[in-house]
Order: sequence, then C-alpha cells, then structure tokens
Amino acid sequence: MEMVSHRAGDASPTNKTSARPIVAVEVDLYRIPLAETLSDAGHGLHTHFEIVTCRIVCADGYEGTGYTYTGGRGGSAIRALLADEIAPLLIGADADDIDGLWARMRAWLHYLGLGGVAAFAVAAADIALWDLRGIRLGKPLCELAGGHADQVACYRGLIDLGYSDDQLLDRVAAELAAGHRGIKLKVGRPDVATDVRRVRAVRRLIGSERSLMADANYSWDADSAIAFARAVDDAGLAWFEEPVPHDDHAAYAKVAAATAIPLASGENLRTLAEFRDVASHGSVAFLQPDASNIGGITGWLEVASLARQHNLPIASHGMHELHVSLMAAQPNAAMLEIHSFPIDQYTTNPLPIQNGTALAPQNPGNGVAFDQKLIRPHLAS
Amino acid sequence: MEMVSHRAGDASPTNKTSARPIVAVEVDLYRIPLAETLSDAGHGLHTHFEIVTCRIVCADGYEGTGYTYTGGRGGSAIRALLADEIAPLLIGADADDIDGLWARMRAWLHYLGLGGVAAFAVAAADIALWDLRGIRLGKPLCELAGGHADQVACYRGLIDLGYSDDQLLDRVAAELAAGHRGIKLKVGRPDVATDVRRVRAVRRLIGSERSLMADANYSWDADSAIAFARAVDDAGLAWFEEPVPHDDHAAYAKVAAATAIPLASGENLRTLAEFRDVASHGSVAFLQPDASNIGGITGWLEVASLARQHNLPIASHGMHELHVSLMAAQPNAAMLEIHSFPIDQYTTNPLPIQNGTALAPQNPGNGVAFDQKLIRPHLAS
Repeated sequence: MEMVSHRAGDASPTNKTSARPIVAVEVDLYRIPLAETLSDAGHGLHTHFEIVTCRIVCADGYEGTGYTYTGGRGGSAIRALLADEIAPLLIGADADDIDGLWARMRAWLHYLGLGGVAAFAVAAADIALWDLRGIRLGKPLCELAGGHADQVACYRGLIDLGYSDDQLLDRVAAELAAGHRGIKLKVGRPDVATDVRRVRAVRRLIGSERSLMADANYSWDADSAIAFARAVDDAGLAWFEEPVPHDDHAAYAKVAAATAIPLASGENLRTLAEFRDVASHGSVAFLQPDASNIGGITGWLEVASLARQHNLPIASHGMHELHVSLMAAQPNAAMLEIHSFPIDQYTTNPLPIQNGTALAPQNPGNGVAFDQKLIRPHLAS
Repeated sequence: MEMVSHRAGDASPTNKTSARPIVAVEVDLYRIPLAETLSDAGHGLHTHFEIVTCRIVCADGYEGTGYTYTGGRGGSAIRALLADEIAPLLIGADADDIDGLWARMRAWLHYLGLGGVAAFAVAAADIALWDLRGIRLGKPLCELAGGHADQVACYRGLIDLGYSDDQLLDRVAAELAAGHRGIKLKVGRPDVATDVRRVRAVRRLIGSERSLMADANYSWDADSAIAFARAVDDAGLAWFEEPVPHDDHAAYAKVAAATAIPLASGENLRTLAEFRDVASHGSVAFLQPDASNIGGITGWLEVASLARQHNLPIASHGMHELHVSLMAAQPNAAMLEIHSFPIDQYTTNPLPIQNGTALAPQNPGNGVAFDQKLIRPHLAS
C-alpha cells in the first residue's frame, strides 16, 4: 500500500468535542538500504533499516510528523497497528491533549502487550503530536522538553562487529576527524580476548581524554561479561552497555558487583515499568531510553524524570536527530548517541556536530524534516 | 489480502539441510463478531474477536495449523509479522526442531520487543509446529505435552461487567445447567460495593461447594483491591485475578499481604522473564499463561515448568479448546478457563464438558480444527 489514510468520518471511538480535532492520520513505511552491511552480537547482520512515519493533520490545517525506526524487521506490523488501530482512535480527538492521547493509545492496545510493537506505533503518533504542538506554539522541541540547554555532548556509536581490526581503527580515526570526541564499539563475541584487544587498540588510538564505551548487545552471560570487564579494567570505559539480557536482573547485579565500570541499559526496555524496575534494582548506572521504542517523546521524558528521581544520568539510544533536543533539554543528560543508521542523508537538516557537541535545532516542532525527494524512493509496498 | 503465502524459493535466512523442510506458510486473519457486546473493567467493550491462523506445510506433505487470538484489536499487525518476518524465517527450516525454531523466531524479532505483538505471532507459528508434530507421530497434544491425564477440572469465565444483576444471575444459572461447576465473574468497578454485592449474590446462587473466582482486569489500585478483598473475605473465592496492573509488583505484594484470598495473574504476562519475576516475588498463587500470547505451546509449557519449580498450581487464560490438552497433561493443573469467546461455534469438535470436567481431544495433533464453512465468511481483508 502506498499510503494509509484516515479522514474525519471514518469509524472513530467516542471523542468529546475537541478544540483541535485531528482530521487525518497518514502512515507510510520506508525500507532504506545501508551502504555497508553492519553487524552486532545481538541482532546479527543489518542490511537496511525501516522508518514508519505518521503524519497528523488538524482541522485548522496545522500538522505534525512523527516516526519510528526498526533495525530492518517488523515495519509492516508497526504500520498495520498505526493504520488499523491508532489512526481511528485519533480521528476527532484533541491534538493538544498529548498526555490524554498517550494514555488512551496505551489503554487501547494494552492486551496486545505494551512491551512490543505497540511501543513503536505509539511512538510514531506521539512524536507527531509533539511536532504539531511545537509548530503551533512556534517553539523548538528542546524548549518544550525542558529547556535546560540547546546543545549536548555526543559520541559516535559504531556497529562494527564485522570490521577487521584495521577497518575499525580506520573508521575510528575518520570519526575523530569528523569532530567526534567519544566512541562506542561493539563487543559480545564468544571470543572475549578479541573484544579486549579491540577495546585496548581503540583506547590507544583515541588517547586517554576521549570517552570510550563498549556494547555487548545482551550476548554474554554474567561470567563472560565479568571476564571482559576485568580484562579492560584499565581501559577507562565510560560505560559497559547491555552486558547481559535486559530482563535478567540477577545477571546485571552479578556483573555490577564484579566491576567498577558503570553499566548501561535501555534500548530493549519497552515500558516504564521495565525502566522503573531496572532503576530500582540499582545495577544500571546509565538509563538509555529510545523515543522510537518507548512510546515516543512522552515516554522518553517519563524515563528522564525517573532517572532524575534515582539520581541517574540519562543517555539515549539511536534517533539522534530527535534525541538531540530531548537530551539538550535535560539537566541530567550524559552523552547523546550519534547512531550508525545514516538518517542525516534523508533529512533536510543534518545534525551539526562541533568538537563532540551536538546542537539542537531551533526551528519550531521536532526539528526533523525528511527530504521527500530522497526518502520517497524507499517507500515500501 | 485474502491469503499470504510463502513457498520454497522465497528469500530465506540460512537454513541448514533439513530432515523435514517447511515449504509453505500461509497466514489468515479472521474478525468474528460476538453475538452480544461483552465488557470488562480493563478492556472496555468487546464487539468481536480476531483469530490469526498459520498453516505450515512440509515437503513430505504433512501440515499443521496454529493460531492466536486478540480481543478484537491488532490482528492485522500479527498477520503482518507472521507473513513478512516469520514465514520467510521458517521456509526451508526443519519442522521437527520446534525448540530451535522457537529460539530463532524470538531472536529474529528481539528488537521489536518480545513482550508484545511478537509473542502472539510466534504463538501461531509454534502451535502449528506442535500440531504438525502430533499429526506426524499420530499422538494427541495432551500426550505430547506431558501426559499426566486426559481431562481437567474447568470453570466458566464470564465477561459480565455489562450485565445487570438479574442478567448475571440468569447467566450463571444457565452455565450451571450446562454442566459447569465453577464460575468467574468480572469486578473492577470504581464502585467496589456493587462488585461485592454481585459476588455475594453469585455465591448464594451457586452454593458453597462450587468454585467462585473474581477478575478485576488490572483496574484497581492496591487500596481498592484490598477494600474489595476484605469485603468478600467470607465468600470463599478460589482466587482474585489481576487486582492491580500485572507489572506493579509492589501493589501485588500489598494486596497479597492484606488478604488470604490467593491472587492470580498471567494473561498480560508476555515473556518468560515476566513470569519468572512474578513467581519469584511470591505474591501470586496461580500462574495463568495463555499459549496464544506467550509464544505458543512451547512458551506455555515453560511457564508450567516454572510453576512446578515454585510449587505453584497452573491455570490457563482463554483458548480452552487448546489449553484443555495442555492443562490435562500437567500434574500441577488447577482449573481450565472456559472462555466467553464462542470458539466452539467455529470448530468441528466443540469441547466436551461433563460435571465441571473438560475432556482433552484424542485425535492426533492439537485437536483443534476450524470449520472452514463457518469461519471463512469472517476472513478479513
């Protein structure tokens, strides 16, 4: 299908008289090939990524666009949920009532499980509503989302498990030349020694002042993760991401007790209850929500609030073109991940990065505009 | 779409040479209207339910059919995930390797979140593989799934929140006349006193010997749930189901500490880690997995095993035509729920119930066959 469109008059659940009634919701799926096949220890090969967009139009002509990502799988299911369940729910509703609509979408989809595809679908709609609000108010997202600052420290997240050592070092050198001051590399091989060697080599290359992180994509058990952490104890890792499966609290506790390297987790936490439980257990030092899979900006800000309540820094996973505004807005922001999916090739305003700092867009709304000429050829059937 | 079909030769991830290669996977979605609109405190009105079927065919001609349910929302997303992600993964794989395929499906869909739509989609495929195994071996599911017995005690689960008191009592009387010896009714109103009155009225009607349960569909907070539990303390409830949200362990603990009525939970737990956490917390006395949303028979049996490890009885939610075989097979089975979705009107072998006992089918495979003449008119576009 080229475009799924719902307009006023379609079947719609009971919406009270609305100040800003939504009259149209349009959903599109794009499958975008990667220039190189990327790999990590958890997800295997990445050959492309998917974006599902959700455009919401109000009766007065204002509109906003939201979207979500996948790593290349499941976009059609997200599209179906948006088109068949969320769009009919939104038509006629008040676009200004973001909190109310977030609660309604989640209640409507509850039995399908909020910890899965629903979290992505709600995200696309929620991000569209925030875009619409910003455009209507003439304010940028970083101001609406907290307003702490308009820039944030960032790092380059590589998906480099398939690179040779030489390729890895060449790539890191190129990232430094491009203005990055922090690097995250993938680990999680059955052969821990290889990962240790690569971490040491990258540390030597970037020097002691720049930030270095390692990400095992939940592929190790506690013993392997501990062996790795102990072996790189002197490499000055800023954090060790997803050493073990996100929902294995006992394994996280075991790893946390065995190393002084702070642990990080978040990209596979899909509900606020999951983040709350992780924060309460106390083994994870950096919470890393991703607005594209935690129910959008509303969900991300809830996790940021949770992090503040637990005196934890917040980091972000993926979606840097949007997270730059959310991260800049938070007083407890750590570092913004600049993800390896090349989204900046498909937007009209690539994210400016200077000396390891990313600048939040100042135009009204979310500050992310897809270049239709570039993205339209990737529309999925 | 009328039918989504994948056949050998379609793009397929690497499958080793297989003894029983899968050559076709067909997926269909049915939307079936309910004769009466049902309601509960969590999901609101039910006007229809959905079934997504998955037919798997092997090269040697053997085939099996699995399926999953929704409460009327999200079927098209489940269909998309089965057709676009799971079917290509299964083509060429060994149908006998159920455990291996279960792990592969879950790994493939991991980033989409196993706690949501993926759990339903994997369920439909997994149930088809079990059906295929049973048919090939000439054995019924109750034997393959443990073989403890070929029958199990059951109760009638009503979705009666919208009934008047008189309608409720008439309906309960009719259920007793139809051979049921246990009743579960819905509670969870803001007005706790009304729910207390209805529980007492049903207990008076059915007498002290029959089983009575109450289900709040996660709609109360701990204080309201405790107020209800204390008020019905002398009504002899066998369990109090979903008093509070499934992922609020603190609220479950608070309710459990305040009442002697055993608590039950499971229909909204979508991953084994969630069941493990609930069992470990110790507040829930009856685990209630649903094969249609916990990844199929493989997932359900994992939860049954977990229940045994924690010395807990296992109950089931929904899908009685299939769960009868799984429950009968377990030594720690409590009672099978006979659900209010009228599936028996669409199968060739309605579940026989005699004096509160349900008899597991003895034909090879899962023992569930849809009557194509009756279900086909409800095929969704």
